[in-house]
Amino acid sequence: MFFYKQNRYIYITFSDANFVAVNFITCLESYQERFEELFKTRAHAIDTLPGFLTMHVIRQNDEEGKYMVVSYWENEESFKAWMTSPEFLEGHKRGFADMAAAREKGEPVPMKSEFKTYSILTH
Amino acid sequence: MFFYKQNRYIYITFSDANFVAVNFITCLESYQERFEELFKTRAHAIDTLPGFLTMHVIRQNDEEGKYMVVSYWENEESFKAWMTSPEFLEGHKRGFADMAAAREKGEPVPMKSEFKTYSILTH
Repeated sequence: MFFYKQNRYIYITFSDANFVAVNFITCLESYQERFEELFKTRAHAIDTLPGFLTMHVIRQNDEEGKYMVVSYWENEESFKAWMTSPEFLEGHKRGFADMAAAREKGEPVPMKSEFKTYSILTH
Repeated sequence: MFFYKQNRYIYITFSDANFVAVNFITCLESYQERFEELFKTRAHAIDTLPGFLTMHVIRQNDEEGKYMVVSYWENEESFKAWMTSPEFLEGHKRGFADMAAAREKGEPVPMKSEFKTYSILTH
């Protein structure tokens, strides 16, 4: 499969992409527009990480405020390296700031997430 | 993004792939091997359908028997056409036979699924 990465197309074989990280997101109605804006203007910090292949954000059609953030990695190690990288903080800083601001004001947390990882079984 | 389809690579723009169908699968432990086998040897009937882009099956890492079957479509109409096509029956006939056999024997249904659809928000 070809993926677009860092301004070029790279060919990724089945065995290259073996780790999939999925964040199941639930947003308050008041936060949906902001959440979508954050991803549409994302820092692309993740795109430079070794082992990162591609990602997308998908929005559930029959229920407001439900999303999946799906990223594909060469392996679990490359994903774990991203989780502890400066690029992770850079990529999440606006969202983290929103959460902190809500907590400071005593408001409900605008976004919740449930995180799971997967292995690609077949295409 | 490039996808591999019908023995050739096709270029798919963001706006081409706007509909994602996800089947959240839970298998009994006794059925997991068979479930994986069915997809590894799938009929590829779906691959010929207009508007079908690509699909994959991913397996949850921290819980046995949990899978997502994810397919990407140009739009909802192409997905709906697949759902009512002879290729849909062809592609599912072995799985449907397994379910029918379990029911006939009075055994627990070996696989349950929860189906949701999504729109691609961003890459």
